[in-house]
Amino acid sequence: MDYILNDENAVYYECGYSNDNCIYLSLGGESYLITDGRYAVDAKQSLIDTKLVIDRNLVEKTSEIINNIKIKKISYNPKEWDYLSITTIMSNTKVSWRQKIDLSHRKRIIKSNAEIKLLKKAAKLGSEAFDNFASIIKNDGIGMSEKELNFLAQSYMSDFGNMPLSFEPITAINQNAAKPHAHPSKKRLNKGDLLLYDGGLKYKRYCSDRTRTAEMNEDFNFKLNQKFSDKKMQKIYDIVRKSHDTAIKKAKSGMKANQIDKLAREVIEKAGYGKYFVHSTGHGVGLDIHEMPYISSKSNILIEDNMVFTIEPGIYLSDEFGVRIEDTVVMRGGRAELI
Amino acid sequence: MDYILNDENAVYYECGYSNDNCIYLSLGGESYLITDGRYAVDAKQSLIDTKLVIDRNLVEKTSEIINNIKIKKISYNPKEWDYLSITTIMSNTKVSWRQKIDLSHRKRIIKSNAEIKLLKKAAKLGSEAFDNFASIIKNDGIGMSEKELNFLAQSYMSDFGNMPLSFEPITAINQNAAKPHAHPSKKRLNKGDLLLYDGGLKYKRYCSDRTRTAEMNEDFNFKLNQKFSDKKMQKIYDIVRKSHDTAIKKAKSGMKANQIDKLAREVIEKAGYGKYFVHSTGHGVGLDIHEMPYISSKSNILIEDNMVFTIEPGIYLSDEFGVRIEDTVVMRGGRAELI
Repeated sequence: MDYILNDENAVYYECGYSNDNCIYLSLGGESYLITDGRYAVDAKQSLIDTKLVIDRNLVEKTSEIINNIKIKKISYNPKEWDYLSITTIMSNTKVSWRQKIDLSHRKRIIKSNAEIKLLKKAAKLGSEAFDNFASIIKNDGIGMSEKELNFLAQSYMSDFGNMPLSFEPITAINQNAAKPHAHPSKKRLNKGDLLLYDGGLKYKRYCSDRTRTAEMNEDFNFKLNQKFSDKKMQKIYDIVRKSHDTAIKKAKSGMKANQIDKLAREVIEKAGYGKYFVHSTGHGVGLDIHEMPYISSKSNILIEDNMVFTIEPGIYLSDEFGVRIEDTVVMRGGRAELI
Repeated sequence: MDYILNDENAVYYECGYSNDNCIYLSLGGESYLITDGRYAVDAKQSLIDTKLVIDRNLVEKTSEIINNIKIKKISYNPKEWDYLSITTIMSNTKVSWRQKIDLSHRKRIIKSNAEIKLLKKAAKLGSEAFDNFASIIKNDGIGMSEKELNFLAQSYMSDFGNMPLSFEPITAINQNAAKPHAHPSKKRLNKGDLLLYDGGLKYKRYCSDRTRTAEMNEDFNFKLNQKFSDKKMQKIYDIVRKSHDTAIKKAKSGMKANQIDKLAREVIEKAGYGKYFVHSTGHGVGLDIHEMPYISSKSNILIEDNMVFTIEPGIYLSDEFGVRIEDTVVMRGGRAELI
């Protein structure tokens, strides 16, 4: 298959290098990376088995390369291209164009052992950052606003600027935790409050992703075992915990993604909170923080060994609080292992 | 003109609200914001004179609205759309589609007085953050790595997480400052080193942008008047300073953008360093950190009152050091005022 890529992680996966202004071509078994002069030195150092082509006008140069090689069909992902660039290349060339939605994500759905190693390292660093963040909250958290907590979360997750984040973390107290994608507010943390924290970092471009929900008290921590003074919080937490544990325990290679979603969802539905679990159970994690396989009620993709994805059930009670517990797992020997 | 927008800042400019999953339509004098249920509450609170349409499938819903209104032509910016979304809307509808490159940027090139007020406030906060950052460097900067400096820059520019950044700041020492878009390394700051710092923040979504180059010593600061112990550094600094000052002093409404570029460039060329000024003189600043007018040798756009842009000449001596001085200006009463 001959194909063209524009997405930064899609390109990196192919040739070990990418930046925010590059195009990748795989034509007739040859690989080409087209980028501008600012990146010449870095690209040369990192590219694997790929011809480096430096030009100011990526779109024109790409069209020229395509025209110089006898290719009939080129596949592309219509989601990853801006309309102007791809239609300009299309009109400059005489090949036929074949839409392949999620072309790169499909290639990346089963991780190599080397990738799993990087994802494990990212998860380990992420988990350590959770613990460091927790000890700061335990000692000094009372009175901190969600915004201040968020800044600290970013500081610890990034090792004070040394590592990129997978995404902007979520630090949400009580009612704000009832929004699955809460933005940090000026609301301050008090004793007995519920705190939801969702955060991740990138190690050598591979993402970690994790969520914990905990009560602010003298023993504050991000462990899975949590005690809440508030009975309702404890009840909801225990349901979400059971959902999380059940899905991880019972997930098997050979299942469809929607069966794994069902494992988590059934626990919450049976407890009577089905309509408060407003999102899917999980998503793949790799170079992108959200990639295949999606663990949703609509996804009938076959789950196989070496797939990596999150299990993250949640219950969101508007104007009260929300609980989400998330871990990333890898399928190994037919079962889900915490990564 | 009937038009459709997808870019977050383009949408915000029209209706006072936007998020990362929305489409805006202006059809027959009516405005529509199509987004998903997660954003219903926030959108309702902020939208100005715009109908809110909530739907899971933005592309289908947008197509439906277009089909229900008798419209013949719709304008769109082919740069701001992913190929899949816009071609799906195109094939779902029977209107004719008209490419308008930079549609929203063209509308936004002349700022309103209200926008200038926000840009001034952003610049003021940015300038204060520069001063706070400088006093930390003055007292504790020796031995800090570029990465550590970068983390501190982000901390001060964001007021410790309270304000978004306009862009990832640049903190570059000596040779690293010779790269216009340097990435922070582990290189550490010593006495007598040159430090280039380029940073900005967003106030109510409007950007600040500024660069200073200074020597690390007991009097460290980010003022325009700088003394360097190294003679060559001082010489280069003085040339860039003169270029910066000349362009700001002599820029007039009614000039073309390339004439303003020339004002800055001529000073550096006459001093014999023309080939080391490797980028254009400036760019517009508003909701986007880079927008119109571009102050480059190729841009013959007419400069008018209420345009806001940067003046940022630089000289980059590979393997030695680089100097850039940047301020943002607004054209008022025919002249450039520091914002």
